[in-house]
Amino acid sequence: MTPRKDLLDIASLTDEEISFVLDNAGPFKDLFKRSVKKVPTLKGQTVLTLFYEPSTRTRSSFEVAASRLSADVTHFDIESSSVVKGESVLDTVETLEAMRVDYIVVRHKQSGTPNLIAKNTRASVINAGDGWHAHPTQALLDAFTLREIHKDLRGCRALIVGDIQHSRVARSTSLIFRRLGMQVAYLAPGSMMPREVPQEIPQFGNWTDAFDWKPDVIYLLRVQGERIDEPFVPSSAEYHRNYGLTNERVEVLRERGLYLMHPGPVNRGVEITDAGMNYEKCLINQQVENGIAVRMSVLYWLRPGAAE
Amino acid sequence: MTPRKDLLDIASLTDEEISFVLDNAGPFKDLFKRSVKKVPTLKGQTVLTLFYEPSTRTRSSFEVAASRLSADVTHFDIESSSVVKGESVLDTVETLEAMRVDYIVVRHKQSGTPNLIAKNTRASVINAGDGWHAHPTQALLDAFTLREIHKDLRGCRALIVGDIQHSRVARSTSLIFRRLGMQVAYLAPGSMMPREVPQEIPQFGNWTDAFDWKPDVIYLLRVQGERIDEPFVPSSAEYHRNYGLTNERVEVLRERGLYLMHPGPVNRGVEITDAGMNYEKCLINQQVENGIAVRMSVLYWLRPGAAE
Amino acid sequence: MTPRKDLLDIASLTDEEISFVLDNAGPFKDLFKRSVKKVPTLKGQTVLTLFYEPSTRTRSSFEVAASRLSADVTHFDIESSSVVKGESVLDTVETLEAMRVDYIVVRHKQSGTPNLIAKNTRASVINAGDGWHAHPTQALLDAFTLREIHKDLRGCRALIVGDIQHSRVARSTSLIFRRLGMQVAYLAPGSMMPREVPQEIPQFGNWTDAFDWKPDVIYLLRVQGERIDEPFVPSSAEYHRNYGLTNERVEVLRERGLYLMHPGPVNRGVEITDAGMNYEKCLINQQVENGIAVRMSVLYWLRPGAAE
Repeated sequence: MTPRKDLLDIASLTDEEISFVLDNAGPFKDLFKRSVKKVPTLKGQTVLTLFYEPSTRTRSSFEVAASRLSADVTHFDIESSSVVKGESVLDTVETLEAMRVDYIVVRHKQSGTPNLIAKNTRASVINAGDGWHAHPTQALLDAFTLREIHKDLRGCRALIVGDIQHSRVARSTSLIFRRLGMQVAYLAPGSMMPREVPQEIPQFGNWTDAFDWKPDVIYLLRVQGERIDEPFVPSSAEYHRNYGLTNERVEVLRERGLYLMHPGPVNRGVEITDAGMNYEKCLINQQVENGIAVRMSVLYWLRPGAAE
Repeated sequence: MTPRKDLLDIASLTDEEISFVLDNAGPFKDLFKRSVKKVPTLKGQTVLTLFYEPSTRTRSSFEVAASRLSADVTHFDIESSSVVKGESVLDTVETLEAMRVDYIVVRHKQSGTPNLIAKNTRASVINAGDGWHAHPTQALLDAFTLREIHKDLRGCRALIVGDIQHSRVARSTSLIFRRLGMQVAYLAPGSMMPREVPQEIPQFGNWTDAFDWKPDVIYLLRVQGERIDEPFVPSSAEYHRNYGLTNERVEVLRERGLYLMHPGPVNRGVEITDAGMNYEKCLINQQVENGIAVRMSVLYWLRPGAAE
Repeated sequence: MTPRKDLLDIASLTDEEISFVLDNAGPFKDLFKRSVKKVPTLKGQTVLTLFYEPSTRTRSSFEVAASRLSADVTHFDIESSSVVKGESVLDTVETLEAMRVDYIVVRHKQSGTPNLIAKNTRASVINAGDGWHAHPTQALLDAFTLREIHKDLRGCRALIVGDIQHSRVARSTSLIFRRLGMQVAYLAPGSMMPREVPQEIPQFGNWTDAFDWKPDVIYLLRVQGERIDEPFVPSSAEYHRNYGLTNERVEVLRERGLYLMHPGPVNRGVEITDAGMNYEKCLINQQVENGIAVRMSVLYWLRPGAAE
């Protein structure tokens, strides 16, 4: 396996790399079960979180993962730093580069920013979400979570539901699912369906047709509140009625034994109901839990010196 | 002593538990005097601070306490996380639960939120202040501070002064003082006096009557600036004149050798004057210092595995 | 060398102390080159950052430096703590003092605040910038950076360009340069030139005269955006034309082999151009990198017990 510096998206990973990350996440998860809460793997390494969009969940998940590997974590909170307003991303990166941090975990609303940063630093850059482009650690944790249920995911069918067009989660998770031999389909209103979808991915406009496709897993996307008021985008109530996982649809999942996933945080009453959250095959909490082990595995994979 | 998962209020503690926390805080405090600044007790444990109301002082005190026990500390700052706006407390807790943090230190403006959280997580929940309900670590540090002066607090008389009605500090600290055999009285304007006060607690409307009760300790509450403009609530100047510790009243304390306490931060010129802050029997700084040792003791008491 | 508790400004340092900090920063920098990322020097010590003005760069630099010395770092973020609004600096310091933190790293817009704090705490206080007064760790890292190029700085000529009058960097860096035997000159518009400049410091109003002085180093100051709209202060474009390092002036630097420095963050297109940033003798990134080693050296110098 050729050593790699950065994790920018799923598309650029080899099968071997995906396997490496997923295979090593298991032992990291097992450690906690045996009450080994901290390993010295990254002792002395500095992980810097550079979040241009706030996300307490993702930032905390990386932070806990890094702490459990004994790394030191520092925030570079761009929003609170009004003094440096107007400073370009690259100037910020030059600063971080000069500070010789070992990892930069970056979230930015503009697609491609992590790639730009990665080219300009010796640090390992991990994309924690960039615009509509990619969210690779989410995809890896989604795949890891499903693999806990089915060791071999080939032929397993995932229906992704919601705003596919504007979702980096949909993009990255679709990619990794298909790389692992799964079949993926989309269910979305027309205004939320991407214009160019690969032929292998069936597109549905309603749940009836989607259920007929016989999915094994339902993957709900978060409805972005700020999009609700746009023209052609359904209201919350309308979205719920037509595309949300209503209580009736939860019953369909239960009858058929389908699994349920969501990247969080959920909008109860919009894409999901309380009954959906309490559904016995709902994997949402396992996704969050696995996020830490998978991110530990990513940090371990990209560790300085791993190349040598 | 039955093991316990959470510290939610003083009312639910047994005498044995109160003694355990107070007795162990002493050795933790002594450690620092011997320049032992860090013990490995909670190595690998994760303490997460979940503050829905900002409080740098209380958060930092828990943070320093956790660091000195070698725990890793992570913030889950709800206010900065605009993305998760609208996310319910329970959904946030499910996330934290899935991240398998060991302690959740929570502050919330709504009474009962820590109890709700505690029921929904395996983590140890510590209430760092909820609405008008409780602030148990403040009460414990107050009791510890007084016990440094009088080993046996039975019969000792504390006069609590200020907005009793809306103060979680008044509630928790009154309770622990009385549990330790002290007598408690209240001095407050009518609009700040609770409607139902236990018969054993005398209520005073002016300092003359309150001093006649012969208190040993004066415990001033912080005046909440946001309440000043409400009807029936005195102005700052009027509050100071009638209920504040004026320089003249400091002289009464001095003549009688009374101790002075306040949970901080103080409003100089409102509930206290510079002379009050500099009064030789003012215990405010000792309260802050003891806050760290007492919070270490609480974290130690609730440590994972202590039950076994 | 008499032990010292605080680093408040350059003026109060002895030659021996300046040498001590600069000489020890080298080995700390070398450690990283040998992949020793963490030393146990300050294990168990608590470093508290108290920033009344936001500055992610400086705060992070101290934070990384403290982590590499194994200290625990806690923020006391004054702006986020709306509850304690109105609390005086001294009351905050009494709280920190009571928490027995070992170091307080302070930034405040009012000159002299770190001195006030230092008098009221046993902790070591490090001034991270106060008003127009001083920024001693910036000065130390500037000197360290130049000393990497010229072991003996005597006779070396530095031209400081920009808003000298309102710059704590200009003040502290001028002082340390002159203490190390360098010659310093100022280039600034009249409205940005201090009224009283020591006779030994030549003052220039244009680049032609300044270049005639034959400087070895050009030290650009950051233009404070908020000053641009004041009367008598040039607009950004006018500032750039008359006082900025234009591409033509970069060529002069290149022809003459002059070094270029800036405390960061830069305003591209105002005091500097892209060509300036990419200039091969631009030391800006080295300044940032050396900031960590120099701050480690300062923390080491002031370490508790060093006095004994």
